Amino acid sequence: MASRPDGKPTPENFRLDNAPIAEPGDGEIALQILYLSLDPYMRGRMSAGKSYAKPVDIGGVMEGGTVGRVLQSRHPDFAEGDIVLSHSGWQSFAIAEGSTLRKLDPTATLISTALGVLGMPGFTAYAGLLTIGQPKTGETVVVAAASGAVGSVVGQIAKIRGARAVGIAGGADKCAFVRDELGFDTVVDHRAPDFPAQLKAACPQGIDVYFENVGGHVWDAVFPILNDFARVPVCGLIAQYNDASPPPGPDRLPGVMRDVLSRSLLIRGFIQREFVDQRPAFYDQMAAWIASGLIRYREDVMDGLEAAPEAFIGLLEGRNFGKLLVRVAN
Amino acid sequence: MASRPDGKPTPENFRLDNAPIAEPGDGEIALQILYLSLDPYMRGRMSAGKSYAKPVDIGGVMEGGTVGRVLQSRHPDFAEGDIVLSHSGWQSFAIAEGSTLRKLDPTATLISTALGVLGMPGFTAYAGLLTIGQPKTGETVVVAAASGAVGSVVGQIAKIRGARAVGIAGGADKCAFVRDELGFDTVVDHRAPDFPAQLKAACPQGIDVYFENVGGHVWDAVFPILNDFARVPVCGLIAQYNDASPPPGPDRLPGVMRDVLSRSLLIRGFIQREFVDQRPAFYDQMAAWIASGLIRYREDVMDGLEAAPEAFIGLLEGRNFGKLLVRVAN
Repeated sequence: MASRPDGKPTPENFRLDNAPIAEPGDGEIALQILYLSLDPYMRGRMSAGKSYAKPVDIGGVMEGGTVGRVLQSRHPDFAEGDIVLSHSGWQSFAIAEGSTLRKLDPTATLISTALGVLGMPGFTAYAGLLTIGQPKTGETVVVAAASGAVGSVVGQIAKIRGARAVGIAGGADKCAFVRDELGFDTVVDHRAPDFPAQLKAACPQGIDVYFENVGGHVWDAVFPILNDFARVPVCGLIAQYNDASPPPGPDRLPGVMRDVLSRSLLIRGFIQREFVDQRPAFYDQMAAWIASGLIRYREDVMDGLEAAPEAFIGLLEGRNFGKLLVRVAN
Repeated sequence: MASRPDGKPTPENFRLDNAPIAEPGDGEIALQILYLSLDPYMRGRMSAGKSYAKPVDIGGVMEGGTVGRVLQSRHPDFAEGDIVLSHSGWQSFAIAEGSTLRKLDPTATLISTALGVLGMPGFTAYAGLLTIGQPKTGETVVVAAASGAVGSVVGQIAKIRGARAVGIAGGADKCAFVRDELGFDTVVDHRAPDFPAQLKAACPQGIDVYFENVGGHVWDAVFPILNDFARVPVCGLIAQYNDASPPPGPDRLPGVMRDVLSRSLLIRGFIQREFVDQRPAFYDQMAAWIASGLIRYREDVMDGLEAAPEAFIGLLEGRNFGKLLVRVAN
């Protein structure tokens, strides 16, 4: 990261640097990175403000989940050639503590899925929807960014649990994918001029669970049609990550609090690591759902580490289509 | 209710009417009202807007919890002279369905407590704090209107559960009562010019549970010092009940949602009747706590039904001191 963005990140906030490859110390592993995951949370790491995690330093390596191949191991659990999940960030080679790695089985699944449907985004959807959202049979679950890494899994798990899944996506192609490939009950294009009316029509019984990962004008359309006792897991707010200052008035907070009270709403922010105890169950369950065809996924793969800044900027604007990855090496 | 208030209720919104006393039909009871409860939720019933309950009609009897004496019974479970809890509203005599009444034992407790610590306000505190707030040993619980019917019980239950109870009240007398009589760990006067700084100093470990029944400038002081994973049961928003339109900007909603996410906050509105299954346990538990001196309470009793409008207007301004009641008859 070359500099902190002021509002939207630009290519100038990033810099491609060359540096010598270090040697692994005792208990460490030298990795060649194969895949880098790009995720909305990274925008938060670029700002200096207080958040749930430390910001990236100016001049530091951008943070990020990665899948890599072991080049050299000084940890007894790993051998050269192993494929591992690590958190090595935006770089081609890395040194990692062996204790922080998870070994992947490349014969069982595509290794890239450890960064998507079988990784942090899939687990975010699973834990947030089931633990906080708690959809019941026949209820209506709405999720925005429904073609994305998290939203696509939210809607499909909602279906598995017998709920009605309503997706929100941007553009005809993504909407068709959400409805026809992912099997949501219906989908609404948030770019339509009459989006709020379309959403209301798509939810004739109101909304029981709104999985929030967008904010902005999607929230504005969702909030009035939340049912009494609706649950809102707050997982992300991508529409406002670039906002430098609060929007102009009126102040809508008192009105929202009034409705939280009168409709007995639940609003709950979460970061997936809170639910770490559920990860083993998630890995088993999700692998079974994928194997049986109940959960489908789509990856959007860019080639070469140098593609990461533009791809990430596009992610914040919704230009990706599916789980966004950078193939750093073959 | 003579007319709907525009902002703060005024005496002109109420009218004292005389009408013939009806005869009870089959299954009904004729009651003389002894005590009328005055509660903040009644402000909501005076407005025509959509809320969780039907508004009072113009010209209709103001709603409210009451304790009365049975004058005539046409229901097998009740006899003349029984003391019962009913929801008969602001009137001296009433007809009620026998099936909606709860018989009180005047030898066991003061009958007025069925409208306070052993009634709806006490149960609101109990269910909201324990089910949503879930205070743990050593955590910090903050409650505003801490000398009031709900807040006083919230803080005392928090203490019983091993939490640290911090009260917020208006004026030196109420603060002294909260600290010295109710036994909160500490109390802060929200009228102090440096109230936010005082609250922060009173919560050196931050706030884990904020039982919200006020909103407004109290919320503004509380929100920045909520800890990660803090729980906010939203029980009332008395500071904004009279607001006719949203306050001017900036719009603080996006900032609050950002913090809900980054601090994994829980915000949950509730109405006590959602937890109706817990009422039997509450009656037993609260009676035992009162008997053992663990829960104390204070009543603020006005005499005569004609005192109700001014007393209610004062309640919305915090002029009452303890659970506000009207003694309608001796």
